[in-house]
Amino acid sequence: MKTLAQLETPALLLDGEALGRNLARMRKQIAELGVELRPHVKTAKSIDVVRLASGSHAAGITVSTLREAEYFFGHGLRNILYAVGIAPGKLPHVADLIRRGADLSVILDSVAAAESAIAAAVREQVRLPVLIELDVDGHRSGVGPESQLLLTLGKLLADSPNIEFRGVMTHAGGSYQCRSEQALRAMAETERAGAVRAAQRLRDSGVPVQVVSVGSTPTATFAQDLTGVTEVRAGVYMFHDLVMMGIGVCRMEDIALSVLVSVIGHQAERGWVITDGGWMALSRDRGTAAQPIDQAYGVVCDMGGRVLRDDLIVTSTNQEHGIVARRDGGLLDPADYPIGTKLRILPNHACATSAQHSHYEVVAPDGIHVSATWARIGGW
Amino acid sequence: MKTLAQLETPALLLDGEALGRNLARMRKQIAELGVELRPHVKTAKSIDVVRLASGSHAAGITVSTLREAEYFFGHGLRNILYAVGIAPGKLPHVADLIRRGADLSVILDSVAAAESAIAAAVREQVRLPVLIELDVDGHRSGVGPESQLLLTLGKLLADSPNIEFRGVMTHAGGSYQCRSEQALRAMAETERAGAVRAAQRLRDSGVPVQVVSVGSTPTATFAQDLTGVTEVRAGVYMFHDLVMMGIGVCRMEDIALSVLVSVIGHQAERGWVITDGGWMALSRDRGTAAQPIDQAYGVVCDMGGRVLRDDLIVTSTNQEHGIVARRDGGLLDPADYPIGTKLRILPNHACATSAQHSHYEVVAPDGIHVSATWARIGGW
Repeated sequence: MKTLAQLETPALLLDGEALGRNLARMRKQIAELGVELRPHVKTAKSIDVVRLASGSHAAGITVSTLREAEYFFGHGLRNILYAVGIAPGKLPHVADLIRRGADLSVILDSVAAAESAIAAAVREQVRLPVLIELDVDGHRSGVGPESQLLLTLGKLLADSPNIEFRGVMTHAGGSYQCRSEQALRAMAETERAGAVRAAQRLRDSGVPVQVVSVGSTPTATFAQDLTGVTEVRAGVYMFHDLVMMGIGVCRMEDIALSVLVSVIGHQAERGWVITDGGWMALSRDRGTAAQPIDQAYGVVCDMGGRVLRDDLIVTSTNQEHGIVARRDGGLLDPADYPIGTKLRILPNHACATSAQHSHYEVVAPDGIHVSATWARIGGW
Repeated sequence: MKTLAQLETPALLLDGEALGRNLARMRKQIAELGVELRPHVKTAKSIDVVRLASGSHAAGITVSTLREAEYFFGHGLRNILYAVGIAPGKLPHVADLIRRGADLSVILDSVAAAESAIAAAVREQVRLPVLIELDVDGHRSGVGPESQLLLTLGKLLADSPNIEFRGVMTHAGGSYQCRSEQALRAMAETERAGAVRAAQRLRDSGVPVQVVSVGSTPTATFAQDLTGVTEVRAGVYMFHDLVMMGIGVCRMEDIALSVLVSVIGHQAERGWVITDGGWMALSRDRGTAAQPIDQAYGVVCDMGGRVLRDDLIVTSTNQEHGIVARRDGGLLDPADYPIGTKLRILPNHACATSAQHSHYEVVAPDGIHVSATWARIGGW
């Protein structure tokens, strides 16, 4: 077996034990709430990770691109929710996946999008599963649970013979702004209540609703009651990251993802250790910048994954250079970080950092060896 | 031929005509200054683009990763400068490329790195070309042109039989902070003078210097005299971007790269048009945030590449969603941007945006058709 020390840097590491704990914790949480977990594969984009996430249960998945739909369908996962408002130009591709046997559902939040979906389903001669996207927190897309548009869309879709109207879905992206357990619990309830209320209004208007789908890692983690909900979607919980830690959703030791880098130089009088881990390897994501503790481009650990005593962060990056310095701006001793030293950087945002890499090097339980290399996909 | 309208979004577009003009302009500029152009391939990472950049001249290239070195060497480009301080763990890979016929040179800025390079060259039984990296502007890595360390390194390398000491190189990354033509000209002269001074001090100490390499797109564009320099490295000039425009290095119409996106929804009361171009397609790069005009996640054009009358920018992004709104915060008429409308987003940073994609769709001179699809690489 290869060791971490033998890897050419930068390399994307995935701690197999932390991953397993994260997956088990979320499965338990969602099972206890009595609903289905539909993992969002946009973080991992790897069949190896998603197979572990689903466990023995052949549940459905959530995707953010049709490329993900193609890849996971190619690996035998049929039940797929494409959770980005459908662009009319993608409907022929969706229809093609359905004709090949995928149970692929799309979402939309406007009459224009509904009309193009209806027309495409007729033209392509497929039965197209559709959900209405809800806006429960003013975060981004979706129709209001109390809106007239919700009922208009429900009736339009339910009355269209080539459409299989499934129900409603929402994503409380506003949960990323929460700063306390209380706020997270309240946001989870806002998400649940909005989705359930929308489903009830549709049913009251004579439109059957089968699916009530909610989800984000913070709300999934802090939900206490999901009455009326049928499924929860979440993705970043698999790996966790510094943004999740800043929100209070995970602890430092739950972060399963890191980037292995090498020290390539020093600028001692500035207190800098220079590594080969730039923004290309770490991503440009600065998700902690708006949080109480700004982690810059990431927290620095030793090769074993332990946070360094000097309290180091990656303060700035260029394409293939990362500047590591003490958080307090104090000088460090370059002799503690000789040229060639390998360090691990915990990322701000697991989705963004893993997207910069073609594969995961899975860290064995001994923390020294690479137990597997798992491919991941990207693109559209 | 496929048309832009037929592309599934998001897609990375490369305007073939703008690319051609950018390449010709830089070739002319560097030829007039009487030095060699060694294109940096880290922006394009595509043999099709780099072949055009080099023109009939079989010049060397600059790379930022050994993956780039492998790819371009595989396409017949032998003369390669790896312009990131060499990590000891990569030396066996470098030696392997050299044994296979690559004229691959590495850079370093410390005695420890020099000693590991010397030891590796002996161990691997190769003749390893090395340059000393200089710091002329306090930007990042490198030794000072006036430092004793420069002479120590020069002597150490020149006296090592398995090392072929080539000379000095520097990158005036500080040029990205310049805000006037005068400042850019001064920075170009700082870069030249520092490199030439370092070369002179080495020669005066008895160490022969063959290569004096400088470069960044801003300094390459504004250099007026390169006496004593042998070659210029630059990469982003091929595509240009909003950061370069903000510095004054290019005009809006010189930006050859854009991301084609589709309108997928509206939140009319907030003045939002929602597209399928999120940070995964645009990158998280916010390089213009520190410039006088902050372009947020990019400037919005119509499908033909013309900047929209409403003065739209991508104000925020999620993974696969981009929110487009008026720069002044005013409301827009959703009817002007129906669901399915295709828009082009000009990127902050060409290197970061193109890195999110696996290929370029090359826009034909008619602005309507795709004349070619060019693959690009990523990773390490």
